[in-house]
Amino acid sequence: MLVNGIPGSSISIRDRGLLYGDGVFRTLRAAQGKALHWPLHYLKLKHDCTALGISCPDEALLCAELDQVLLQHPDGVVKLIVTRGAGARGYTPSVDILPTRIWDFSPLPDYPPEWATQGIKARICSLRLPAQPRLACVKHLNRLENVLAAAELDAQSHDSRLAEGLLLDAGGHLIEGIRSNLFLVSQGRLATPDLSRCGVAGIQRGRVMAWALQHGITLQVRDIGLEEALQADELFIVNSVIGLWPIRELEQRQWSSFPVAMRIRLGLEQQDV
Amino acid sequence: MLVNGIPGSSISIRDRGLLYGDGVFRTLRAAQGKALHWPLHYLKLKHDCTALGISCPDEALLCAELDQVLLQHPDGVVKLIVTRGAGARGYTPSVDILPTRIWDFSPLPDYPPEWATQGIKARICSLRLPAQPRLACVKHLNRLENVLAAAELDAQSHDSRLAEGLLLDAGGHLIEGIRSNLFLVSQGRLATPDLSRCGVAGIQRGRVMAWALQHGITLQVRDIGLEEALQADELFIVNSVIGLWPIRELEQRQWSSFPVAMRIRLGLEQQDV
Repeated sequence: MLVNGIPGSSISIRDRGLLYGDGVFRTLRAAQGKALHWPLHYLKLKHDCTALGISCPDEALLCAELDQVLLQHPDGVVKLIVTRGAGARGYTPSVDILPTRIWDFSPLPDYPPEWATQGIKARICSLRLPAQPRLACVKHLNRLENVLAAAELDAQSHDSRLAEGLLLDAGGHLIEGIRSNLFLVSQGRLATPDLSRCGVAGIQRGRVMAWALQHGITLQVRDIGLEEALQADELFIVNSVIGLWPIRELEQRQWSSFPVAMRIRLGLEQQDV
Repeated sequence: MLVNGIPGSSISIRDRGLLYGDGVFRTLRAAQGKALHWPLHYLKLKHDCTALGISCPDEALLCAELDQVLLQHPDGVVKLIVTRGAGARGYTPSVDILPTRIWDFSPLPDYPPEWATQGIKARICSLRLPAQPRLACVKHLNRLENVLAAAELDAQSHDSRLAEGLLLDAGGHLIEGIRSNLFLVSQGRLATPDLSRCGVAGIQRGRVMAWALQHGITLQVRDIGLEEALQADELFIVNSVIGLWPIRELEQRQWSSFPVAMRIRLGLEQQDV
């Protein structure tokens, strides 16, 4: 664990990351001492910092710190948090504040390997995401809605097959998973929810979109209702840690094969090495 | 500064308060070694913890810690943060997690004294608050919207008289100030925005409501549009640090006397001693 380049595991109680959730974060897969898709993660970090008016740390500085983390922890999950920094009382950010850089590490979660090949069970959360265009797409530290949605799911933890909750917006459109982005396959075409009002646009979502473009598969970014999703040929979720999981059960609907999802999963994995 | 009863100014980078804004807070006035309206603050803390499913620390424990803080800092602003605690990776809160208790102190801000008697200038922020009934009323640590609204206001800081920004919801109803609750006086009656969809219900708001009840003044909690507010006889904002400030300028409208607001301010101040 590194805080502003120094080994440590604590931050100031006056850090705005704690006080207001005033910061952004990245969750990366590390494999054999390499952080997968770091350039995409840095681009996204920079975009998210800009959205909040946080001055993004230099890539060279972050790369040097990441190397330190990877030297000790070559395989697993690396988390990078950048907060606006520690400062005086009050919501107004001061101009000369220095961002805080926090690196943490954890082992790769022990997910059943068949979730990637045979699919997962998902359910719809009752919590709805409201529209906040100023924060849409950004992976910021205001994640109470994800916490409450995860707690909802956990209340049903007697069902050990239940692996993800899907979130709707106030208008009933599917937006994302609690910790993932969502795709739909219908008649050979891909669609993924429009995230201009709410949701987090993860880098794995961007990779699927780029892959579709490279392979001549039509992809639409648009509103997707629950009914449409339940009638889709395939549904799958993605994030940087899990990679890609097809959904084999949602509400009353079941799926048993996922040819397009499997093709994309293999395609993405080939880019990982 | 105290963290879990021990003098200190740092918390774990794995505390969910930092990771997800998974916690709540209170801002109290301390005067002559006494925390004003502590019983109301504790009730609100307990309510807010319950709303998030955080187990609220015992009042006796918090009182003992507060006494330690007040012994060193008898006058100023005391901040209490309670987070869900530090735990394993992932949004799902574990059942056996212990909440983190954080106390901090800062001097009373140096506001111009005439703001309390002659009123402040306020403006409408362009950021809109979306409806999230699951978090409405709760003073939680997801405060990025307040930060962005404060930054908007700060961009106009050439105007040193500008003291507060007012926030509308997506439907154009007035909800609150960035750091305050709002009241309107019209024909001797009080009204304050309905906060069942968004906003923070502060304890000073509750005190004004109780005062109105005690003094036979009609008070309505309901939707208030901007047009109605601009036509009101008086507008004022309240919070635990500022007390009560009338608004003397908002958009094109100006006010020069605030008889009801002044009466309430004096009433509240008499309860402070």
